[in-house]
Amino acid sequence: MSTAVAGKGLEGIVAANSGICWIDGDAGVLAYRGIDIHELAENSTFEETTCLLWSGILPNQLSLREFSTQLALARELDQRIVEMLRSFPTSATPMEVLRTAVSALSFYDADEKDNSHDANVRKSYHLTAQIAMIVAIYDRIRKGLEIVPPDRSLSHAANFLWMLTGEKPSQTATKTLDIALILHADHELNASTFAARVIAATLSDVHSAVTGAIGALKGPLHGGANEAVMRLLYEIDKAGADPVEYVQNMLNAKQKISGFGHRVYKTEDPRATHLRRMSQQLGKDCGQPKWYEMSRAIELYINSSKRLNANVDFYSASTYTALGIDIDLYTPIFAISRIAGWTAHVIEQLDDNRLIRPRAEYIGPAYPARYVPLASRP
Amino acid sequence: MSTAVAGKGLEGIVAANSGICWIDGDAGVLAYRGIDIHELAENSTFEETTCLLWSGILPNQLSLREFSTQLALARELDQRIVEMLRSFPTSATPMEVLRTAVSALSFYDADEKDNSHDANVRKSYHLTAQIAMIVAIYDRIRKGLEIVPPDRSLSHAANFLWMLTGEKPSQTATKTLDIALILHADHELNASTFAARVIAATLSDVHSAVTGAIGALKGPLHGGANEAVMRLLYEIDKAGADPVEYVQNMLNAKQKISGFGHRVYKTEDPRATHLRRMSQQLGKDCGQPKWYEMSRAIELYINSSKRLNANVDFYSASTYTALGIDIDLYTPIFAISRIAGWTAHVIEQLDDNRLIRPRAEYIGPAYPARYVPLASRP
Repeated sequence: MSTAVAGKGLEGIVAANSGICWIDGDAGVLAYRGIDIHELAENSTFEETTCLLWSGILPNQLSLREFSTQLALARELDQRIVEMLRSFPTSATPMEVLRTAVSALSFYDADEKDNSHDANVRKSYHLTAQIAMIVAIYDRIRKGLEIVPPDRSLSHAANFLWMLTGEKPSQTATKTLDIALILHADHELNASTFAARVIAATLSDVHSAVTGAIGALKGPLHGGANEAVMRLLYEIDKAGADPVEYVQNMLNAKQKISGFGHRVYKTEDPRATHLRRMSQQLGKDCGQPKWYEMSRAIELYINSSKRLNANVDFYSASTYTALGIDIDLYTPIFAISRIAGWTAHVIEQLDDNRLIRPRAEYIGPAYPARYVPLASRP
Repeated sequence: MSTAVAGKGLEGIVAANSGICWIDGDAGVLAYRGIDIHELAENSTFEETTCLLWSGILPNQLSLREFSTQLALARELDQRIVEMLRSFPTSATPMEVLRTAVSALSFYDADEKDNSHDANVRKSYHLTAQIAMIVAIYDRIRKGLEIVPPDRSLSHAANFLWMLTGEKPSQTATKTLDIALILHADHELNASTFAARVIAATLSDVHSAVTGAIGALKGPLHGGANEAVMRLLYEIDKAGADPVEYVQNMLNAKQKISGFGHRVYKTEDPRATHLRRMSQQLGKDCGQPKWYEMSRAIELYINSSKRLNANVDFYSASTYTALGIDIDLYTPIFAISRIAGWTAHVIEQLDDNRLIRPRAEYIGPAYPARYVPLASRP
């Protein structure tokens, strides 16, 4: 057996060829299909960015109109999925519910048994529309509120806020969420996307891959980190503590501060730049600058004391709070965005597939260990 | 950025240290915790093997009794899961249903929010018992039959057959299934187990990891292969064709024959040896030797013409058919067994965790590609 030993966690190991996302961790560069994330955050929309991720090129006016229409038309959820969501205990967390409901979506997808490129593109439209709807609908259900029907005249970001709140969102709220969705839409072989590719590579289906990806995103070392950041801010606020002192004490007690450092970036996470700005602006606009201010104080302290930079999760916490969004919806919102990247990667994987099957370095009892009969065991 | 380029599909790359499973692909050796699979197939039970996989050592009489009692006591399914299974369309395949129901189990697991070693062992008992129950119960529901309550006096294998058929299984049937469960219980970093570890490594939960693993197992390049084998045998039988000629024609048409070859084994898959023997014996016993005979003819032909060996999936098809089990339950039965390995690997991963996050080799448009304004695009 000839094997190469990789760093733990496959650090620095190339596991796939991909034309979707370019990251230069030393220079702090992130680009989708070659286009810098700053340009996309400033000029694009989630619809256009998703179209770029899927097709590889920026759509022209006609293609973008068609794409947006397709995505809006996909805002349909089988009534049996809604009934299933109603049957769940309201103690179920939104990420558990999303994982379960996305798995069940395959029952009602006409393309379920078709794993062709074209069928998978159709499923990608469905899933992108449906994931946002499931998050909004379950939140209404668990709060005992009426379900808000989708509005096909709205953008993806605006429709989600509409279905979540039952109110037409402000331009600022829509724009903020839209930029957040652009920033989170893809990030190369992050753990959830990698899980999706591992699953897809057995020639299983898109729903299986995305269900697995949601499970991976749920973890606090991945998408769950933005929830952890906000819980910390609430904790500090409730204790009336100084944020820097509080974090100092945590570090002294060897506790991890979520939202800092990144496996790939050695500089500032380029997504954090935009989220910091939005967190500050929204905090000001809604008369609640404290979450931004606490975050900024913690960031400066961790920068100087630990030489760690804020990552995408750190300022998404205070940004979503300023939008009035519940803390346990932060990670689901990450999924609402990342579905664009997950599906792009699954389709890319299947276009040139090979089973992803590494080896383990065996560290157990030497072979052959004896099978001692039951009666003779100590 | 310093990265090492791996073979496609991470072939030959070591992605984890593990003390669970030893495979020597050149010599055709498989061992759990150092003990040869042949010894386990001949002498062990699924309960003892699972105990070995989880704890690292063969249990003594007292420990094995405790283990078996714990597993039998875990034969409980929240009534709301049963109601959910009843609400699914009977067109839903057992693997889609299993993936969805396992995801929903986390709603009702008292340990859901506890990711400690001990809590994860408890969840492993629950999941091992519950997966078998879900497969049996959904099969009864979709056939319009009464649900059979679990019998805690039976072994894991016997109870599954009891809940599936409503009849106390013969000793031969129980023994055959028990051996099949032993043979499928673990196989190092196969795609579903690797998916489970990638998901668990974000510090997500066991239910997320197992849900993702079920999705991966579903694929025809992984667990789904045993279904594909049986569909081919039925096809040949229905056409009244000569199996060798039929397969020859498929190969000429560049079609893949499922159940042959393996990423790791270069010799006979040691699990195939036992499944071949059981397929032959059961075929004789139930007066239906034809599935074994067809399989054997195909195997000899593929051996000599393609130099490929039968893998674990090839003879599990005719073995399960001889047990009277429906074709679309073959992969779920694989899951009923592999849950032992999935949970062992998740717990091992979490005992010394690092996020699994490889890199991609970028092959897309050169950075920076220009963001052309919408109105100016061709």
